[in-house]
Amino acid sequence: MDTLSTDSSDSQKRISTYRRIVLLTEGFSTPFYAKTAMSMLLYRRDDIVAILDSCESGKSAQQLFCVGDSTPVVASLDGLDADAVFLGTAVAGGKLPGSWRSIILDALARGIDVVSGMHDFLSEDPEFSLTSRQNDSCIIDVRKNNEKVTSTGEGFRSDCLRIHTVGQDCSLGKMVVSLEVQRELVARGEDAQFVATGQTGIMISGDGVPIDCVVSDFVNGASEALVRRNESHDILLIEGQGSISHPSFSAVTLGLLHGAAPDGLIYCYEVGRETVKGLDNVPLLPHRTMIDAYQATASLRHPARVIGIAMNSRNVSPEEADAERQRIEQEFGLPVCDVYRHGAAPLADAVLRLRKELGQ
Amino acid sequence: MDTLSTDSSDSQKRISTYRRIVLLTEGFSTPFYAKTAMSMLLYRRDDIVAILDSCESGKSAQQLFCVGDSTPVVASLDGLDADAVFLGTAVAGGKLPGSWRSIILDALARGIDVVSGMHDFLSEDPEFSLTSRQNDSCIIDVRKNNEKVTSTGEGFRSDCLRIHTVGQDCSLGKMVVSLEVQRELVARGEDAQFVATGQTGIMISGDGVPIDCVVSDFVNGASEALVRRNESHDILLIEGQGSISHPSFSAVTLGLLHGAAPDGLIYCYEVGRETVKGLDNVPLLPHRTMIDAYQATASLRHPARVIGIAMNSRNVSPEEADAERQRIEQEFGLPVCDVYRHGAAPLADAVLRLRKELGQ
Repeated sequence: MDTLSTDSSDSQKRISTYRRIVLLTEGFSTPFYAKTAMSMLLYRRDDIVAILDSCESGKSAQQLFCVGDSTPVVASLDGLDADAVFLGTAVAGGKLPGSWRSIILDALARGIDVVSGMHDFLSEDPEFSLTSRQNDSCIIDVRKNNEKVTSTGEGFRSDCLRIHTVGQDCSLGKMVVSLEVQRELVARGEDAQFVATGQTGIMISGDGVPIDCVVSDFVNGASEALVRRNESHDILLIEGQGSISHPSFSAVTLGLLHGAAPDGLIYCYEVGRETVKGLDNVPLLPHRTMIDAYQATASLRHPARVIGIAMNSRNVSPEEADAERQRIEQEFGLPVCDVYRHGAAPLADAVLRLRKELGQ
Repeated sequence: MDTLSTDSSDSQKRISTYRRIVLLTEGFSTPFYAKTAMSMLLYRRDDIVAILDSCESGKSAQQLFCVGDSTPVVASLDGLDADAVFLGTAVAGGKLPGSWRSIILDALARGIDVVSGMHDFLSEDPEFSLTSRQNDSCIIDVRKNNEKVTSTGEGFRSDCLRIHTVGQDCSLGKMVVSLEVQRELVARGEDAQFVATGQTGIMISGDGVPIDCVVSDFVNGASEALVRRNESHDILLIEGQGSISHPSFSAVTLGLLHGAAPDGLIYCYEVGRETVKGLDNVPLLPHRTMIDAYQATASLRHPARVIGIAMNSRNVSPEEADAERQRIEQEFGLPVCDVYRHGAAPLADAVLRLRKELGQ
């Protein structure tokens, strides 16, 4: 077994079984680049044994990323007894940094599996592929998929409440909000399931579809099928992607919105962000415009409304965050919180209120 | 040269240079299946020498398809001096009908190029590939693409008026409306260009991007790049795909709508159609809802409004078509026509009025 893709249930199961994971961030150990590693440290803390970055060895994860406590940063795989190396960044269009080749080959040669979210598939590299075959190690490219189903337009199980995070922009915390609300609901005894639609979410949960890599004719269908295979749960928290107004990624956003056919939306934004990430020439649109657009376009497929707002206030002071929270609550008449600063309880409350309203 | 894809300018140029084309519809010579062949007969009539269908040989194209005049239906390629065989149907998810294999091999063995819009790429079939190499014939898979650019969000040349056809559903004539309005504008001396976004449009025009086959992360970017390389023209008629409310294909529709950033929209529908094509369980939405949705979502990227309505009245009598036309004109206060029954002049007028309004 030398290559697997996430559409194989084998590889999905395998991702969630690793218990001695090394996160590779060699040369890219900053919060800007190492978002995948940081999310893994947040949500699979107990499965991580080390960070691999020879430039930073001797430090702790906490020192590098402000998360991950005493998890050590090491210079090599020696003596770690790792079961998998997860590539911990998504740099430069998802391409593999040059210096990583020898580290990946070293892991595969030691019989350690390698899990990658890069656009360049490791499993299609002849040297990686040969080394994994020779050493009985496995390469999992989570972005690889062969999704080729179109949507049926059929409804989902009526007792499955579908909540979807949508945003003013990309890269502002939709995955984190989905995970935090799901955890809060589980803590209250609810059968709530996180549904991953991006590579980091798949690495965390061991299931999902890398929706931005699906051929456009099949985006709605892949999203629908993903929700369908999770509809036995009472509540789904479906990770959003991009934004409905994003010049580059709105196709992904709408395909997911229509395929998942959510009942409730959680609108996410970052305090202080004024232009589209990566496109400084494009101003972000007002929250009211965005919320109206999400509700209107979602409802072309299935009635949906925004039930709460998640603000990402990482770049402002606690006082500024509280003032912003009050202001937005008043303006929109909806619960508002930063899931890190304030916890996810107000959003979990909103989910349960929606369920009651819908009579589930 | 054994394989080409449409992102190569070589293959695009080649498609438009064929002057002795045979349309292959073997066993599928009905209007339901042979839409590609019928469109080719309408828009490249002078380049077509025959229809190939051994079940119907001896008839004329007009008898089979109600279009194409005396173009003969033949049983084989013997004595035709063809320069290309174009696959004339899009059946069963774009897969190759089994009986066509020997016909395609025969063409390639005779040194005749083969142009296909199938989802299954002929160029990846070892037998086809070998035969084309051995006989210096060429396989062009128009759906094959390697589009990997993301959108810049930059504006287009301000004197390039962009008109985009959008629809209540898929498969109701958006390509035909785009072509008919473009022809009408050219007949009036305007520099108007048709921009193809689907396989049939590419076969007709020899340029374009098969947008439904692009990976979803790159749909907006591929659409933007396609328009960018045509923006030297004064007026673009950009072929629409799917519909903004289509359970299966709305991702394609929105990516194209945002990537092309049109100034004006022509809304297309079919008189009497009540459910989504292929999804009998999903009712179509009212025209007002659809028009509002198109205007609102398009304007998230660039201000756009519907300037006219194209009705497809193929299934009703002339009297019913005229009554419908009057009713819709009154309801929406917009020019309405069936481009076949009434000509495209009212829509061309609307395009030129929009240009005047925008001060171009």
